[in-house]
Amino acid sequence: MILRDLGEFNLIKRLSRRIKLSACVVKGIGDDAAVLRYKKDRHLLFTTDMLIEGRHFLKSSGGYLIGKKSMSVNVSDIAAMGGIPLAAVISLGVPPSLSLDFVDGLYRGIREIAGKFKIDLVGGDTVRSKKIVINIALTGEVEKASLVLRNGARPGDVIFVTGAIGGSLNKRHLNFTPRVKEAGFLVKSYKIHSMIDVSDGLIADLGHILESSRAGAVIHEKDIPISRDAKNFKTAIVDGEDFELIFTVSNRTADRLIKKWPFRTRLSKIGHICKDCKCLCLISKDNKKQKQKIKGYAHF
Amino acid sequence: MILRDLGEFNLIKRLSRRIKLSACVVKGIGDDAAVLRYKKDRHLLFTTDMLIEGRHFLKSSGGYLIGKKSMSVNVSDIAAMGGIPLAAVISLGVPPSLSLDFVDGLYRGIREIAGKFKIDLVGGDTVRSKKIVINIALTGEVEKASLVLRNGARPGDVIFVTGAIGGSLNKRHLNFTPRVKEAGFLVKSYKIHSMIDVSDGLIADLGHILESSRAGAVIHEKDIPISRDAKNFKTAIVDGEDFELIFTVSNRTADRLIKKWPFRTRLSKIGHICKDCKCLCLISKDNKKQKQKIKGYAHF
Repeated sequence: MILRDLGEFNLIKRLSRRIKLSACVVKGIGDDAAVLRYKKDRHLLFTTDMLIEGRHFLKSSGGYLIGKKSMSVNVSDIAAMGGIPLAAVISLGVPPSLSLDFVDGLYRGIREIAGKFKIDLVGGDTVRSKKIVINIALTGEVEKASLVLRNGARPGDVIFVTGAIGGSLNKRHLNFTPRVKEAGFLVKSYKIHSMIDVSDGLIADLGHILESSRAGAVIHEKDIPISRDAKNFKTAIVDGEDFELIFTVSNRTADRLIKKWPFRTRLSKIGHICKDCKCLCLISKDNKKQKQKIKGYAHF
Repeated sequence: MILRDLGEFNLIKRLSRRIKLSACVVKGIGDDAAVLRYKKDRHLLFTTDMLIEGRHFLKSSGGYLIGKKSMSVNVSDIAAMGGIPLAAVISLGVPPSLSLDFVDGLYRGIREIAGKFKIDLVGGDTVRSKKIVINIALTGEVEKASLVLRNGARPGDVIFVTGAIGGSLNKRHLNFTPRVKEAGFLVKSYKIHSMIDVSDGLIADLGHILESSRAGAVIHEKDIPISRDAKNFKTAIVDGEDFELIFTVSNRTADRLIKKWPFRTRLSKIGHICKDCKCLCLISKDNKKQKQKIKGYAHF
């Protein structure tokens, strides 16, 4: 059997099953970041992302934007837990024929995002590689009371998404702002039941919340904010790499939140968590109910 | 200008120079692992290593040994700081045509080393890649009093190396035991002035200690323990990937240490840190003094 037959998400499940964890781990594999015991009032967060030339970026986009993306995708994971980033280590695989200009640009992009979010760049590894490979691992911290996992969605919860989704590959995936500020406001001001960032696509990532929370949901086409970069609605909801936040809160919190939302970043109520069903249903503009296959971008 | 013209070590220096760090960082780029503020009596360690098919391993070696290596190289970095490992995140780039057997073996190797050193495997990333790429990032902790950096070598110090070096590429580089036990004994029982693990080669890594400590050294060919896997003395001292420890202690400590060394792992006194010179001199078996160019394995 080869990996293509198994699929990416089944592989992750298969590998996770055989792992035993110590009491230091609050949450292991299966969320945007791992959660580890740290200090009296705070947990340590730990995440990693690998970006490969030709898959996550084209060399022609230039080092600077690629550097920004490689750091921002990790920051987005920390934000989705309700935390703030702390320190990063950077592994870089590069061909010896690569121009110094490209690498200088790459690190300028990395430093820019690190500076913006006060992240310490503390180490790394450089190796020779035919294709450019960038792996960043990032720690963060979260107040215990602010921690949000994927698995807390409750029946009746309202589902929100920040920004607009779809068509990110046109450009936005290289140059987005991780929603640290918005997530920070949310977890400090309200009881957020579940949260995730949109990396695999709206349907897949909402699907991760539903699977973890053993719940279903109904969402409405008319309420889902589609980016003007998106080809159409159908592709937008599975495109991925939007790096917006999906989160759920109680009905009462939802009303208060909509009134108090202080950011220019768009906030949209797109549906709610179901009481009975265990599937994800989309209500189309002409009021038809479509059961969604929970799929998004899978690497194999 | 391209990376090949600059060289790996100059690239690292160039990238490190532009980085500003917060007060949370005890030691950033330039040691085996980064050192971060953590708890009252302990620091957090943070390291990462990227392994690429065809460079650090051949696919034909099988997933199991490759998995062991990918975890062990990181553990060795934590050991060289005087610490113990805690939690790891694993990024895996793989072709969809790779067999599930290979990946199962890979994770079996990773889990074996993780189990041996009580490391929690808490997260990761899987992506599609033409060549197999494995990146592991590992945290650890070290008692403040036990922390050893590269930069503490003092004139008159005796230089030790564990095990035997050279020819690791024949097989040992895939299946070695990181010197956690030995390093733990050393830092708990003695004042270790400086320490590093041998990844770039004996000469290059002793060179890193000398450069960080602004010191020179004299070492003796007759005292350097050469592995039976090594081709000859000349290659052995630059081969790399030995993952033994080089460390320095005062003359007085050296005498006590040799008497008390409780392990079967060989321990060799190979020379001493100089009072005056700033270079690395090798005394050959026929008593000739050879100034060494501090070079070892560089990726470009």
